[in-house]
Amino acid sequence: MTHTELLQRLSQKTDSKIVLLVMDGLGGIRTRERPKTELELAKIPNLNKLASESVLGRIIPASWGITPGSGPAHFSLFGYDPIDSNIQVGRGVLEALGLDMKLQPGDVATRCNFATIDSKGLLSDRRAGRIPTEECERLCELLTSKIKKIDDVKVIIKAGEQYRFVVVFRGKRLSGNINDTDPQTIGVKSLPAVANDSASKRTAKIANQFIAKANQTLKSESRANSVLMRGFSVLPHIPSMGERFHLNPACIASFPLYRGVASVVGMKILSTGMEVEEEFKTLADHWSEHDFFFLHVKKTDSYGEDGNPEGKMKIMEQVDRLLPSLLDLKPDVLMITGDHATPPPMRSHSWHPVPFLLHSTVCSFDDTTAFNETECAKGHLGTIPSHAIIELALANAGKLKKFGA
Amino acid sequence: MTHTELLQRLSQKTDSKIVLLVMDGLGGIRTRERPKTELELAKIPNLNKLASESVLGRIIPASWGITPGSGPAHFSLFGYDPIDSNIQVGRGVLEALGLDMKLQPGDVATRCNFATIDSKGLLSDRRAGRIPTEECERLCELLTSKIKKIDDVKVIIKAGEQYRFVVVFRGKRLSGNINDTDPQTIGVKSLPAVANDSASKRTAKIANQFIAKANQTLKSESRANSVLMRGFSVLPHIPSMGERFHLNPACIASFPLYRGVASVVGMKILSTGMEVEEEFKTLADHWSEHDFFFLHVKKTDSYGEDGNPEGKMKIMEQVDRLLPSLLDLKPDVLMITGDHATPPPMRSHSWHPVPFLLHSTVCSFDDTTAFNETECAKGHLGTIPSHAIIELALANAGKLKKFGA
Repeated sequence: MTHTELLQRLSQKTDSKIVLLVMDGLGGIRTRERPKTELELAKIPNLNKLASESVLGRIIPASWGITPGSGPAHFSLFGYDPIDSNIQVGRGVLEALGLDMKLQPGDVATRCNFATIDSKGLLSDRRAGRIPTEECERLCELLTSKIKKIDDVKVIIKAGEQYRFVVVFRGKRLSGNINDTDPQTIGVKSLPAVANDSASKRTAKIANQFIAKANQTLKSESRANSVLMRGFSVLPHIPSMGERFHLNPACIASFPLYRGVASVVGMKILSTGMEVEEEFKTLADHWSEHDFFFLHVKKTDSYGEDGNPEGKMKIMEQVDRLLPSLLDLKPDVLMITGDHATPPPMRSHSWHPVPFLLHSTVCSFDDTTAFNETECAKGHLGTIPSHAIIELALANAGKLKKFGA
Repeated sequence: MTHTELLQRLSQKTDSKIVLLVMDGLGGIRTRERPKTELELAKIPNLNKLASESVLGRIIPASWGITPGSGPAHFSLFGYDPIDSNIQVGRGVLEALGLDMKLQPGDVATRCNFATIDSKGLLSDRRAGRIPTEECERLCELLTSKIKKIDDVKVIIKAGEQYRFVVVFRGKRLSGNINDTDPQTIGVKSLPAVANDSASKRTAKIANQFIAKANQTLKSESRANSVLMRGFSVLPHIPSMGERFHLNPACIASFPLYRGVASVVGMKILSTGMEVEEEFKTLADHWSEHDFFFLHVKKTDSYGEDGNPEGKMKIMEQVDRLLPSLLDLKPDVLMITGDHATPPPMRSHSWHPVPFLLHSTVCSFDDTTAFNETECAKGHLGTIPSHAIIELALANAGKLKKFGA
């Protein structure tokens, strides 16, 4: 029996409620220039008080030194080991999810560019002069009207920002092991889609037919007269959190990528606003409807990537002010953490362990008195894989039966 | 995807430099008689200062209670899980590497004794009266001149200390699952080499032919008139650190066994002297040539095995005095640790976690103020497998790409 099978067998439906509050990129680092982290410097009295009534620890998204992208980092928080190959989700799929496209298992998604080719068919601009988003939307509508199906494969096209768009192929026996058609340079022809395994041959053929039809459709455009396809990837079938943990989960996230990843594991996507306050209100509004809530706060990560510690601290302080309203809902289990660290000195995601807090009546609070990297390193939960927190949440919520007699 | 495959996919070449300074057998234990460890008692101001600017932790060479030999302990430091069966390296191979023999994947190596048999062919001395090393060398030359090949298998013989020598069989389709011919007692005949699996049958036959020819060659010797073979083992093909981590590694070690293990994982062996000072100078002399340096200090272990804590402390203090010269080279990542513990009260290797220090600009230093077992137990890295440190080094050196989008 695998560990996954054990959890599936032992988990049970109850009325208790779990909240997973994720501040994206929460973790920080100490450097010589900035010897305190944002969590150490921020004014977060409510989080610190909660820490003294909780058990703390740290979570590792993928492995000790692996810096995860948002996809793997969130799958791990949802209880799915991200290195397990069944959970690999490629660039095209993530881009589609980031545009709020509803994907189905088996769909092949690709990130595409509008591009410019000259009279000889050679690429002169891989981004079609960075056409405005409105023009991208017009061209995607045009392509949609001309290319609805190739053989029995449905073609779904959605515009992104500027020259970027996504194409999804939906049908049977599709696979995504196909090279990019973008040669990454100009003055040459774009590459044909070539399958790297036999399972992807049919998909590569359809991609080449799509490219031919698209180029034909676009031939009178002055700038966006060609397309490039990258990041071919298939949405794998992933057992839902309902199947795996008997949960009825909901997602509250203001950014589409996180809604997309949540939808892949079967969460109900609740519509919400862009502001953190609105997200917290959405939680209260839907409190009776679900037993698991994933509440995602994006901008801690954005400010980390900008190298802006003060901005990151402001978001932490905003969450801190909203925390009492969440506690008023009396969740049976509240977990507060990040998907990964985004230390402002690094201006990027990193591999460092992420602060983690778990609050429940039976969590057995430790001696920690604040919510930050150092206190979490002393916490009684120790340092554990991110994908273990669901198991702890289920246990603290009374949703896991005893293993064996 | 396995974790190993993931690291291989994500690691990339950069100009940054990593130093792994290993004090062999570094870890110690507290006992009622000696309530402080050698690291706690030694005068190591430079190491302690560095600790306050680093992140500390502890490493476990193989498993919580497993006491490793030097082979597995070093493979683990180099990023290879030593319990993974492909990395098993048997006694014969380690003995050969310890004599500075250059082995090739597929070679079968054995530890041999010269022994004495009586007129009936019964063993009367399993060590041939502990003949002097010079006599061993003469006899090995004699055997080499008489036995160069058996069938198409090359026979390579090298003298060790006293009655000990090594025989390596080099050829196709060899395998090492063969019992020892040493019966471990006298008054009986030595045992024939017997294969324990069909893949080893040919090798056992060649070993028996070797023994017959050797006994024939030695029959007029008064003491060393027979040979015993033990520890048959094959050098597996192990992917190099270059293949696995895209590193260009070098080894600086004054003892041959460590050079041997390093050569198995593809390190360039730099020639150096027997003194620690000479080893540090070798590092500086070759600084521009490699991106990973393994610097091995042997005698902390030797004094541990002798039950001599003061001797062990003296070596630690010697390393401490040399540390500033290493820091002057400005390694991007410096790791200081041991391969395993060798507590003087135990006079042997042990299973205890080993102190570990990692220094880089983005290591996120913790609140530790000294480099010893207790401070390392409080360090923010926690207690991790030894084979995880390479991953941390690569991350801190900026040599690992992000995992997923």
